[in-house]
Amino acid sequence: MKAGVLFSGGKDSALAAVMLSRDYEVELNTFVFRPGQDIAAVKDAAQALGFPHFTRVLGDALLQEACDMVVGCGYPNDAINLVHRHAISRLAALYPVVGDGTRFNDRVPMLSTGEVQSIEARLGCSYVRPLLGFGTSEVKRLAERHLVVRFGETGEIENGDYEHEIRGALRDRGCDLASLFPARHRQSLVVSVICG
Amino acid sequence: MKAGVLFSGGKDSALAAVMLSRDYEVELNTFVFRPGQDIAAVKDAAQALGFPHFTRVLGDALLQEACDMVVGCGYPNDAINLVHRHAISRLAALYPVVGDGTRFNDRVPMLSTGEVQSIEARLGCSYVRPLLGFGTSEVKRLAERHLVVRFGETGEIENGDYEHEIRGALRDRGCDLASLFPARHRQSLVVSVICG
Repeated sequence: MKAGVLFSGGKDSALAAVMLSRDYEVELNTFVFRPGQDIAAVKDAAQALGFPHFTRVLGDALLQEACDMVVGCGYPNDAINLVHRHAISRLAALYPVVGDGTRFNDRVPMLSTGEVQSIEARLGCSYVRPLLGFGTSEVKRLAERHLVVRFGETGEIENGDYEHEIRGALRDRGCDLASLFPARHRQSLVVSVICG
Repeated sequence: MKAGVLFSGGKDSALAAVMLSRDYEVELNTFVFRPGQDIAAVKDAAQALGFPHFTRVLGDALLQEACDMVVGCGYPNDAINLVHRHAISRLAALYPVVGDGTRFNDRVPMLSTGEVQSIEARLGCSYVRPLLGFGTSEVKRLAERHLVVRFGETGEIENGDYEHEIRGALRDRGCDLASLFPARHRQSLVVSVICG
């Protein structure tokens, strides 16, 4: 059974892919807004994991909608969830099972129980989150067991989370990013896999 | 790293144990209220899975408290959650990691986010639920991939869920079980494991 996993190149989505690969034929999927977006580091991370990897384009209209929402809310959470729902819906049309790296303690992206049930019912897929039942310390332990990961602040680490392009588009609009995004946001990028 | 898994002999706790065994040294733990309780079928299920199995006694005081709660509420949910919290707390004193077969769509036993955080903080353990991120259809698919399971109504299947002994104690009190418990409640018992 194929499972399409949302993949940013970061620790959580990589660990979710590793865990799902024990029971499913995993394919990694990275979403960008604009086709020219450079995600070389994410492609390297996918290659290190050894699963097929696809880049999919969400389009500029959704990017602008997400930017409007960040400006309207004054913070990025709702916009990130909006984009996440779009990405899952796109994969649901392509795979019988769609997965991501959502953890128990995550705030965004995080779909409500009703949103999950709606996606599964409307789109006829299963939406699975192998890390949902694990807290921070166990996710850390499992990641250290399976992955070599590089950490850094947003800007230093070129992974494929939605925020990167949203920040760029808001910068193009002349927005003050410091007033819209949390000051510190640690990002991760998978470098290699620990075998065995 | 050892993980103590709550084990009823049923499909969900067995599947949780199988999934956790890929990353942890799993030990199965079945809780009974009274030491003489016959759980031969649960022991057979544990042997089929091939993990060490321990029977632990919760005591008659908790059984009576649970019965009082069922009668007071008019339904068993709160009492089942009470017993589940006790069982997890007991395992948390014995293992660094405690797991169970809670699924995304379960209503009971189901601890709230606050209860989970409280258990982890107070008792210094990790509480993990490998099936929490999987809906009904995926749990079914995974169980069919790994386990041969026998199904039946409560009474026909002698697994080790808490309800069995609570029903017995309420029957001893002369209570009308039909007014306190749902009419139909499908139970499961693991018969064997599908290798490979």
